[in-house]
Amino acid sequence: MLAQLIALDWGTTSLRAYKLAAGGVVLEQRSLSSGIMQLPKTPRVINGRECADGFELAFDEACGDWLNAQPDLPVIACGMVGSAQGWREAAYCETPANVANLGNSLQTVVSLRGTRVYIVPGVIQRSRLPNVMRGEETQVLGVLQNLPVEAGNEVLIGLPGSHSKWVEVVDGRITHFDTFMTGEVFAVLSDHSILGRTQQQGATFDGQAFDRGVQVALSADGELGVLSTLFSARTLGLTGELSPTAQADYLSGLMIGHELAALATVQRHRRNSVHLPSIVLIGNAQLCARYSRALDACGFAKVTLAEQATERGLWQLALAAGLIDSSSR
Amino acid sequence: MLAQLIALDWGTTSLRAYKLAAGGVVLEQRSLSSGIMQLPKTPRVINGRECADGFELAFDEACGDWLNAQPDLPVIACGMVGSAQGWREAAYCETPANVANLGNSLQTVVSLRGTRVYIVPGVIQRSRLPNVMRGEETQVLGVLQNLPVEAGNEVLIGLPGSHSKWVEVVDGRITHFDTFMTGEVFAVLSDHSILGRTQQQGATFDGQAFDRGVQVALSADGELGVLSTLFSARTLGLTGELSPTAQADYLSGLMIGHELAALATVQRHRRNSVHLPSIVLIGNAQLCARYSRALDACGFAKVTLAEQATERGLWQLALAAGLIDSSSR
Repeated sequence: MLAQLIALDWGTTSLRAYKLAAGGVVLEQRSLSSGIMQLPKTPRVINGRECADGFELAFDEACGDWLNAQPDLPVIACGMVGSAQGWREAAYCETPANVANLGNSLQTVVSLRGTRVYIVPGVIQRSRLPNVMRGEETQVLGVLQNLPVEAGNEVLIGLPGSHSKWVEVVDGRITHFDTFMTGEVFAVLSDHSILGRTQQQGATFDGQAFDRGVQVALSADGELGVLSTLFSARTLGLTGELSPTAQADYLSGLMIGHELAALATVQRHRRNSVHLPSIVLIGNAQLCARYSRALDACGFAKVTLAEQATERGLWQLALAAGLIDSSSR
Repeated sequence: MLAQLIALDWGTTSLRAYKLAAGGVVLEQRSLSSGIMQLPKTPRVINGRECADGFELAFDEACGDWLNAQPDLPVIACGMVGSAQGWREAAYCETPANVANLGNSLQTVVSLRGTRVYIVPGVIQRSRLPNVMRGEETQVLGVLQNLPVEAGNEVLIGLPGSHSKWVEVVDGRITHFDTFMTGEVFAVLSDHSILGRTQQQGATFDGQAFDRGVQVALSADGELGVLSTLFSARTLGLTGELSPTAQADYLSGLMIGHELAALATVQRHRRNSVHLPSIVLIGNAQLCARYSRALDACGFAKVTLAEQATERGLWQLALAAGLIDSSSR
């Protein structure tokens, strides 16, 4: 099968490259560690010219050989590559945002070899407390492609990560989203606070400790908020009720539990209903497994995992932008 | 006036020494940076013997000359000096705890010069999520000494710090307390998270930014919890609505606001009343000023600041332990 598109998922710490054929079929894929904060530094000759630019070097590593074989392949990229610290800034599109207006707003940069790289903008929500995403919008669009339009209105799309996003959709448009810094706060507390000092790495995921943390967040004790319940990761250790190897997973469950308990409250208010929406999760499998467990405990009854969200979203955006022939749809 | 007692407030990063006369009058006081995590290391001769022990060196610096002048002065110390990482571990006393049972539970260590140092134990609350304090119990007792017993039942004593404590008292006993890690979480986020990257040090405290953060915590947006609202310190910067020099004070207000909003909710539930208790604050003046502002915004109408809480508490405990003649009371 002949390739039709190169799709790049280019984030802060990683760069994933996909070679896609008609219908968005994945012919080949690669994962590099060349995120925009850890670009290659060793100069090399690209297209006959000595080059030291990290973005060019990473781009060439990711798909130079694919372009040598098919020089006219269109290239589309999403993620932090379009941020102010990226290869070329692609200004945020405002909510509501869908495939059509994101596909019409691609920014471009021409690489050393003359290839035009189309960069997907992020999305900004200009609410009282603004919210932004970059990369997640593409994944959401990839998920929506596989859902009937009406179904999309009833789901909440979750993207766990350093900064987890919870995205509401109406008629194929991203209308509202919330961000939680749970993942990053967990990491800095484990690495730099007193809570990390007594943590010991466990051999495997301690589901019991994780679930216990979730339950504390949901209990009456959780009413004091995460800034208070956090301290129990230390004191339960002091009293011998939580072993050092259980502390990290307990803390993880506690923090994710606080995130999801608040999410459930706010979703019920917004929807003016006791019923919680169905959830579609996108992301790292292990992290999604943690969120699935905690979502269940928090009363979100229906949770499914999405696959290939990024490459599907990039394919849809390339179609909308006219980068590929719509007969390849 | 002749000294009656040496009182030491010996924490993680500092050591304060007080020379007290009858009635607890402060004759002299000193502040050293010799907290238990940064003890002196240069060996020195103490009492005719070469000594390299950090606790002995710090103790000698703090009050060796006072003991040379009056070798029989009793010495009492509170704080992390009594922790497992301290000079001598003083096991926690359980709640309810008052002057009498803490004064009867002093641990002792005999210094190189032969002085017996009495160490105040911390307090543990064996609730479902246990809580501990070490040093704060002495400050609370120092405050209670100046309040009529009945008044004590109506106040909530707040000790802002890396780990702030909110202490409930009934009839002179510490009956319940909550801990919030607000100060430490603020510090690690500012030093190690993405939020710190765009913060710039302002010339002075930005009260407007601080108050704005408090209001966000109290607003409908605050319902998502601090793990979510934190992100606004970044996004308001991205949209130009919050300057880099305002971001740290905004974040501080936001986090303290979440702490106090949760505290108010829980206090109303526990007291089964819409009325909030009066507050007595103990601690660093600048931090107490921040908390006073935020307490006012959160509906705590009556806030007073306590002074000399530590030295008064140590004096009371020394009396209860019989270290000083009760005619010196």
